[in-house]
Amino acid sequence: MTSTPPDAAASVPAGEAGGPATPHVALDHPGIVELFALLAYGEVAAFYRLTEEARMAPNLNGRINMASMAAAEMNHYEVLRDALDQRGVDVVPAMTKYASALENYHRLTTPSTWLEALVKTYVGDAMAADFYLQIADVMPDEVAEVVRSVLSETGHSQFVVAEVRAAVTASDRQRHRLALWSRRLLGEAITQAQFVMADHDELVDLVMSGGGLSQMTDFFDRLQNTHNRRMQELGLA
Amino acid sequence: MTSTPPDAAASVPAGEAGGPATPHVALDHPGIVELFALLAYGEVAAFYRLTEEARMAPNLNGRINMASMAAAEMNHYEVLRDALDQRGVDVVPAMTKYASALENYHRLTTPSTWLEALVKTYVGDAMAADFYLQIADVMPDEVAEVVRSVLSETGHSQFVVAEVRAAVTASDRQRHRLALWSRRLLGEAITQAQFVMADHDELVDLVMSGGGLSQMTDFFDRLQNTHNRRMQELGLA
Repeated sequence: MTSTPPDAAASVPAGEAGGPATPHVALDHPGIVELFALLAYGEVAAFYRLTEEARMAPNLNGRINMASMAAAEMNHYEVLRDALDQRGVDVVPAMTKYASALENYHRLTTPSTWLEALVKTYVGDAMAADFYLQIADVMPDEVAEVVRSVLSETGHSQFVVAEVRAAVTASDRQRHRLALWSRRLLGEAITQAQFVMADHDELVDLVMSGGGLSQMTDFFDRLQNTHNRRMQELGLA
Repeated sequence: MTSTPPDAAASVPAGEAGGPATPHVALDHPGIVELFALLAYGEVAAFYRLTEEARMAPNLNGRINMASMAAAEMNHYEVLRDALDQRGVDVVPAMTKYASALENYHRLTTPSTWLEALVKTYVGDAMAADFYLQIADVMPDEVAEVVRSVLSETGHSQFVVAEVRAAVTASDRQRHRLALWSRRLLGEAITQAQFVMADHDELVDLVMSGGGLSQMTDFFDRLQNTHNRRMQELGLA
């Protein structure tokens, strides 16, 4: 449990291909509470945005799929709230400081059509999954478990693929439009992630303990790579 | 399983005090599919209404409590969808016919303050729980199990009690206002329930098989009684 020394292997980058890297981060690293708080607000913000964007759904099926995804976000939130609770931290005050970055991301990426809403859902879900997986690799087991159990609930957004592919196969204009839109989503997410890092030293230190600066660059590179893979799945590449 | 004869004991009212009554309804009664479809739409409608009404929350805590309740509604929905699926019924077309009654209920009871939203949540959750419990008693085991598993998820609305009690203790005017409001909620729910019954013979037949007309009168009487108990809990009686 506590056998992982804090900065033990700061120069060793996290393993990308060869299986999960050895955890580098101490269980009591103050960044862990901040990370959980950030993710918790992310889940609540996603819940309300998904539900609002579901108004654009052309039919009941679409509204129900969005509602199911939103419900899954609240289940993730509850996992994170309990993990914070076990560390003696009250989730609501802890997560409030991350509100502006997440609300800004959503405000700057408000979809104007149902297809944009679908792509945002898919891209957002995929980015969250990448993010969770990458941080789980460098965390102590107990923390990785929380992160992976949150991750295991994602995958609700598969319903998006068929609908988006059909639309972009039928219309080149739609494909170009949605390809630009998805690039904008990634850009805004990275911008807001960098703002969060700039404001919260514990989080920067957490990423540093997990492998240093190369880890941070790798992190954004990998986000970009998996984003490209998602664009191919949606027929937007 | 199928050993319960349909109209076997139509004159025996469902046991109110002496434990659950013997199931009176056949497993293949066509009203069961209709009941599940009605409840399924009820969950989806509640999800979207709770989420919309949560906008009135004065703080993040209130918004999160509402979101957790809404997420629980979607979990109920999924139980009902799976139960319909096992009976070879596609949930979305089956439930669409109940949309107008449920949307009308919500439209006619749109809260204008956060306290009204809280009371509506509490009263609605309690009415749903009463309803589920009462129908479970007269259903075949397999159906009762579905109904009870949906019920077991309720109880999220306890957070309402403290907030409403505090408000009505501090203000008589608020107490009178919310007492009227809660009576209106019950009234509209009963009105819409009667409309649904009038339009759907299979549901009427289901209630009749479950104990006949006295059962139906008892049902509304009991709703009224438990409603009064809830009003006391909220300090509104």
